[in-house]
Amino acid sequence: MSQPDPKRVKTDDDAPYELIYWPVIPGRGEFVRLVFEEAGVPYSDIAQNPEKGFDAVKRLTSTDNIGDEHNPPALAPPALKHGDLLISQTPNILLYVAPRVGLAPKEGHGFYHLNEIVLTILDGLVNELHDTHHPIATSLYYEDQKEESKKKSKYFIKERLPKYFKYMQRVLDAKTSGEGPWLYGDSLTYADLVLFQAVDGTKFAFPKSVEALKKSGQYDGVFKLYDAVKERPNISKYLQSDRRKKYSEGIWRYYPELEEE
Amino acid sequence: MSQPDPKRVKTDDDAPYELIYWPVIPGRGEFVRLVFEEAGVPYSDIAQNPEKGFDAVKRLTSTDNIGDEHNPPALAPPALKHGDLLISQTPNILLYVAPRVGLAPKEGHGFYHLNEIVLTILDGLVNELHDTHHPIATSLYYEDQKEESKKKSKYFIKERLPKYFKYMQRVLDAKTSGEGPWLYGDSLTYADLVLFQAVDGTKFAFPKSVEALKKSGQYDGVFKLYDAVKERPNISKYLQSDRRKKYSEGIWRYYPELEEE
Repeated sequence: MSQPDPKRVKTDDDAPYELIYWPVIPGRGEFVRLVFEEAGVPYSDIAQNPEKGFDAVKRLTSTDNIGDEHNPPALAPPALKHGDLLISQTPNILLYVAPRVGLAPKEGHGFYHLNEIVLTILDGLVNELHDTHHPIATSLYYEDQKEESKKKSKYFIKERLPKYFKYMQRVLDAKTSGEGPWLYGDSLTYADLVLFQAVDGTKFAFPKSVEALKKSGQYDGVFKLYDAVKERPNISKYLQSDRRKKYSEGIWRYYPELEEE
Repeated sequence: MSQPDPKRVKTDDDAPYELIYWPVIPGRGEFVRLVFEEAGVPYSDIAQNPEKGFDAVKRLTSTDNIGDEHNPPALAPPALKHGDLLISQTPNILLYVAPRVGLAPKEGHGFYHLNEIVLTILDGLVNELHDTHHPIATSLYYEDQKEESKKKSKYFIKERLPKYFKYMQRVLDAKTSGEGPWLYGDSLTYADLVLFQAVDGTKFAFPKSVEALKKSGQYDGVFKLYDAVKERPNISKYLQSDRRKKYSEGIWRYYPELEEE
């Protein structure tokens, strides 16, 4: 993996990392941002300029987009440009970046185990949470699928949230989680950053439910890890900066009625 | 990637590949099976013995499962055992196996581009199709969420199916799709097998809608690729064998009422 495929154009490893994502919301772009922020690796983030950001995402997601000389088209943001390479899909971007910035092994079992943990959190906790406010169609407003949202949220809170918190706790209880509060091995990896963001977003969207999970005492490792990430010097600085966007109308939304009995 | 991480136990590359998945249905295990079948690489498939298969999946998904000496716990099948390594999550298993059996590059841009295409098809077309019959909760019967299924299917057929077929066609129209009918480069990769299975399952679940997409003439490359995979000697032999399970109560289900106007 450290050697580029000779048949394809070389990616200059000194090339700047350029994130393409929607402005205004944290969204899925946030998982990528946290990796760069923790690693202290410079990256450009077009979302910081709303006008340019919207234009870039519009070009990326155009149904006329058939990619370029080196890259197939992306379906949706986030995307990452690094030299000639353009890749999309959050877990794929993380898989590319994390080993390069020291937050994952470059090869071996850990490479696949971390990808597995990250896919489980993103595909499970994050995507299902999104669907609590859009169970019927992403093209409809929440207001037009409110009744179904309420139904889906009931099961999400009762069954899915504990399922995913239990899963994360089990990964922490496994022998593959070594010293320290981390999910895998003895030091922080990008999977810990993914857990942090997934839990942070869930706290925003379903505050009472997450508080109840915390009080149950069954997921202490998960909340300890959440705190440990939040206190990392680079993450703490980032969370207080204006680069960290506020939750609003993205994946993580706060509709109090979805938590009511 | 050809060298195991020295800090972890070595995977014997001659070790047998062992698939753990639900018996009876094709399901997500099918994406893994097709890779071994096309490559002509032997693998054991515990689902071929329903009793043992159910037991293995039950052990895997037990909430008491905290993994073993070398592996974190899996949340859900499919899982793959290879020597000491146990990994889960369909795109992760494919990412591990495909380069080892000659159906993907081991490194370089292609490694990430193929993962991106596969994640888009699995996370998009496959997961969303599953949710057409379970929009509210996986723990409820279809019959108890039939009304919502009908609503969701309307948008799935009208908006999502064309979106994903158009995406697959755009990948085929891209410069990164070379000679031949394949998604990426000049020869068949595991992404082509994923497209085949995703389209095949969709044809089963929404036959009229897929027929309409075919007749539109806008996705000829997708259907040509589907046929090309189906005609591969190893795949053709496999599809006619009793190792290929019939669609029934898995991801791909046929509820005619979901396609009615």
